[in-house]
Amino acid sequence: MIRSHEAGTLRREHAGQQVTLAGWVARRRDHGGVTFIDLRDASGTAQVVFREEDTAHDLRAEFCVKITGEVRVRPEGNENPDLPTGDIEVAAERIEVLSDSAPLPFPIEGEVNVHEEIRLKYRYLDIRREAVAKAMRTRSQASFLVHEVMREHGFVNVETPTLTRSTPEGARDFLVPVRLKPGHWYALPQSPQLFKQLLMVSGLERYYQIARCYRDEDSRADRQPEFTQIDIEMSFVEQDDVLNVAEDLVARLWKEIAGYEIPRPLPHLTYAEAMSRFGSDKPDLRFGNELTEMTEYFAGTSFRVFQAPYVGAVVMPGGASQTRKELDGWQDWAKARGARGLAYVLVQEDGTLGGPVAKNLSDEEKSGLAAKAGAEPGDAIFFGAGRPHATRELLGAARLEIGRRCGLIDESAWAFCWVVDAPIFEPAEDDKGEQIGWTSVHHPFTAPKPAFADDFQDRPGEALADAYDIVCNGTEIGGGSLRIHRAEMQQRVFDVLGLSKEEAETKFGFLLEAFKFGPPPHGGIAFGWDRMIMLLAGLDSIRDVIAFPKAASGHDPLTDAPTPITAQQRAEAGVDVIPEDDRE
Amino acid sequence: MIRSHEAGTLRREHAGQQVTLAGWVARRRDHGGVTFIDLRDASGTAQVVFREEDTAHDLRAEFCVKITGEVRVRPEGNENPDLPTGDIEVAAERIEVLSDSAPLPFPIEGEVNVHEEIRLKYRYLDIRREAVAKAMRTRSQASFLVHEVMREHGFVNVETPTLTRSTPEGARDFLVPVRLKPGHWYALPQSPQLFKQLLMVSGLERYYQIARCYRDEDSRADRQPEFTQIDIEMSFVEQDDVLNVAEDLVARLWKEIAGYEIPRPLPHLTYAEAMSRFGSDKPDLRFGNELTEMTEYFAGTSFRVFQAPYVGAVVMPGGASQTRKELDGWQDWAKARGARGLAYVLVQEDGTLGGPVAKNLSDEEKSGLAAKAGAEPGDAIFFGAGRPHATRELLGAARLEIGRRCGLIDESAWAFCWVVDAPIFEPAEDDKGEQIGWTSVHHPFTAPKPAFADDFQDRPGEALADAYDIVCNGTEIGGGSLRIHRAEMQQRVFDVLGLSKEEAETKFGFLLEAFKFGPPPHGGIAFGWDRMIMLLAGLDSIRDVIAFPKAASGHDPLTDAPTPITAQQRAEAGVDVIPEDDRE
Repeated sequence: MIRSHEAGTLRREHAGQQVTLAGWVARRRDHGGVTFIDLRDASGTAQVVFREEDTAHDLRAEFCVKITGEVRVRPEGNENPDLPTGDIEVAAERIEVLSDSAPLPFPIEGEVNVHEEIRLKYRYLDIRREAVAKAMRTRSQASFLVHEVMREHGFVNVETPTLTRSTPEGARDFLVPVRLKPGHWYALPQSPQLFKQLLMVSGLERYYQIARCYRDEDSRADRQPEFTQIDIEMSFVEQDDVLNVAEDLVARLWKEIAGYEIPRPLPHLTYAEAMSRFGSDKPDLRFGNELTEMTEYFAGTSFRVFQAPYVGAVVMPGGASQTRKELDGWQDWAKARGARGLAYVLVQEDGTLGGPVAKNLSDEEKSGLAAKAGAEPGDAIFFGAGRPHATRELLGAARLEIGRRCGLIDESAWAFCWVVDAPIFEPAEDDKGEQIGWTSVHHPFTAPKPAFADDFQDRPGEALADAYDIVCNGTEIGGGSLRIHRAEMQQRVFDVLGLSKEEAETKFGFLLEAFKFGPPPHGGIAFGWDRMIMLLAGLDSIRDVIAFPKAASGHDPLTDAPTPITAQQRAEAGVDVIPEDDRE
Repeated sequence: MIRSHEAGTLRREHAGQQVTLAGWVARRRDHGGVTFIDLRDASGTAQVVFREEDTAHDLRAEFCVKITGEVRVRPEGNENPDLPTGDIEVAAERIEVLSDSAPLPFPIEGEVNVHEEIRLKYRYLDIRREAVAKAMRTRSQASFLVHEVMREHGFVNVETPTLTRSTPEGARDFLVPVRLKPGHWYALPQSPQLFKQLLMVSGLERYYQIARCYRDEDSRADRQPEFTQIDIEMSFVEQDDVLNVAEDLVARLWKEIAGYEIPRPLPHLTYAEAMSRFGSDKPDLRFGNELTEMTEYFAGTSFRVFQAPYVGAVVMPGGASQTRKELDGWQDWAKARGARGLAYVLVQEDGTLGGPVAKNLSDEEKSGLAAKAGAEPGDAIFFGAGRPHATRELLGAARLEIGRRCGLIDESAWAFCWVVDAPIFEPAEDDKGEQIGWTSVHHPFTAPKPAFADDFQDRPGEALADAYDIVCNGTEIGGGSLRIHRAEMQQRVFDVLGLSKEEAETKFGFLLEAFKFGPPPHGGIAFGWDRMIMLLAGLDSIRDVIAFPKAASGHDPLTDAPTPITAQQRAEAGVDVIPEDDRE
């Protein structure tokens, strides 16, 4: 190494030693002929003192320098107790500028107030900032823990291909033309799903991978075209076996990184319970304020709006004192979510009910309403009425919004749960919302729960899956299922999905073929790694935990990718070749 | 788990216990009403005995079954000492067929004698075979060791993007059209080179990654379109620092996996020395039999063939007794490598020289020849004459061929070395072999050795790089260099390469931009992970250590990728959109 010590490691006991440091000029202060430099490297910073003004004259922020000098205890009163190296300073004797720096697009030290696009364009400078570097280190530590836990559990780390065949998992594949076979394309996988199931057929029994996945989909605020998942699959398991391994992994990560001991086993909520109590399949359990089902309560109502297959309510504590404008704001909020509005009743301090809905209710309906909904004087009650699922989701979103606005959420808390027993199928709808069939809630290999194994095809809307999602603070961090391993059952699922034999063959014929050779019962789980690290690191965006993320729409401000290609690249990649025969 | 024990773990002390096993029917033997099954799972196999013929009647190879029964000590004389479970058997009481198996394309147990294409098509069955499964487990173990060693050395594991901008590293990029930005393409990286250098600019100081890389190049026997490398980069280092970390990593892998303690430090050979002694930049040091330079010896020769800028020799022990056909075979061998032939002299038992070359030599030349070349009576001496580099390579290949044919190579030995001080540049030639300029031997960011730092541009053919390759048994397993971090020096390299400012800007402008902001001195190394595992596992092909490899030409016999795409896929991916303006 061209240095003898790391700057952040110097302490009082180094006093008197000659050291050579190398790093960046973080801050500079000039005091009557003496120049102080904070020298930063990956280990931290140390103060360097230049007695002769000349030497330090040209040093500007972020110059990369090598400094030799003697470590001295700082004069009494000049110690900095906030800094690990605050007891000492280095009296510079020799300095070498390893490289200089142009003026910075944003400061490395202190607050940054530039558009994220600028930070991403100069991401290498952004990572020099302490908070961003820390996120990178946290991610690295977390990855190591994954490897450690999985190894302790006897898992085999297998790298599966990323140049593979297009699969039909909902979102769209990136395609890759192949020069050696013009007109033929690979696809980048949306997940290693098919390969991990093949590895179970292969008898490895316990597979995991920190896998890069790809999705060429509409840009959403917090999505990336490439992302990472912790991918796990196990043979000869029951649901609890997968859940135990997953909990071991999550518990270790939270303990080592967030310093939080997760209470185990995690609570289980059925999908139905999560929807009815929290209006969400990923409930935020850091606060209560659950939904109340009012369907029966309003069974005989003459109020047309509440004559619906489902009526539910959620309380906003203290919400009765909202201004007219605030209450109108809720209507806009609901409309932005595609609802017609959000009916509400205000429970006055004297117990009477205010707001436009109240006058449509009978005295009997009014008299028990606050108690039924769990509202106190001064609260507002929001109502949703309509189709159960969509209405619950609206109320669930209102609950979260209430939680945020009313400060009901303990931001320092961690609340985990499993959501189990999701439906296997959900209605497929056309543009007008008419049901035209069924689609998979997870993917077509998800096994039904034993109670539905024989006849799910006769009641697809009721059938529940051996599927499970793990939720942290209202964010789904992972999900999985036991898989179908019998051809006969798989065929019945395809039948419900309206997938012909030919389609199934084209899409995943090689998996169906593999299942002819003694496939074991198996199941697994996958964790959204970027999102999980984001939570663990206490950050707000997955871009904060990705070294070189794309901006929205997949543009990389740093490299300017994607770019147009030249005619020669097109020709060489065989992009424009259409094979005469689609079969080999 | 649906089983109570793993089959391979049963021992004498389990006798009397009721166990439930799950796995595959490996072998079946019927003996007078009693059926013996070897039940295999990931842990090994156990013998299961069926007293009632009926129960086992339908069981065929590779059925996946669940068996409950009592563990019994085998009758005396029936133990199998070769099997960890050879003392016991399980007396089956209940059996459940979890899934049956179609007839197999090749046997799982014992020798397989089918074309590799069939093994790859049914790779999931191939991996059930013990040797292949073991290779997967070895790779997994090796990956864990990498993470462990790198963590111990304070490295940060960073995932770099695989959807990025085309880079100019020699081989060709795979391209990926982007739906959200029709007519714009990502490229899959040939290595994380640019990103790892950016991470050094970012101040992380120690980066590593087990990185997937991509190369859309002409198919060669042992190349894959996607491959994995261990990618390492460090700041503020000198060459020895990188070499030490690399040796620590290699030493740990060989110790833990191959049980071999690598003697350290590894020997260093300069590139020039490797070429002159072994005719190779990746010398196989498991045997000697070095080349002898004879240029001076033949300085005044009248034999036209040896009037060359370089003449060298390599001895074939016992080669004088080769038949005419064998000696002709060497000529064909040389011609297949693009040489005109391979001159030879046979040292007879009486010390006289035979073969067609001998009569062209003067008595003086003949008298000292055997001693000079290091040949004994009975040996053959092969000669090469011509341009030094190409001729040495020919003789180096002959040396290897001699090593193999004469059994000089100890196949159980491990021989590592560093090859250092490679040239920075090599001549770029046109189709006729005329030099038209210079290209990089490694890549354009490779730093010159200090002795050439100021004037390499004036003598590009002599200039040596701070570059290093690590070689194991004649295979390069890794290589790297110290990098240029000064813009001025980088510009001089571009000048030698004939790369205009505009071209440099287009190709890696973002790296040059980053280097304006205090880049630290840095360097790194990358290991070819597939090849390294292949060596570690004692296998012959990288396909043996990749879970789902492609066949030659990039075809995947399992999924049949790559495939043609539909018109709809083309349209959605924006493949045919040509952007009007190449700039954003």
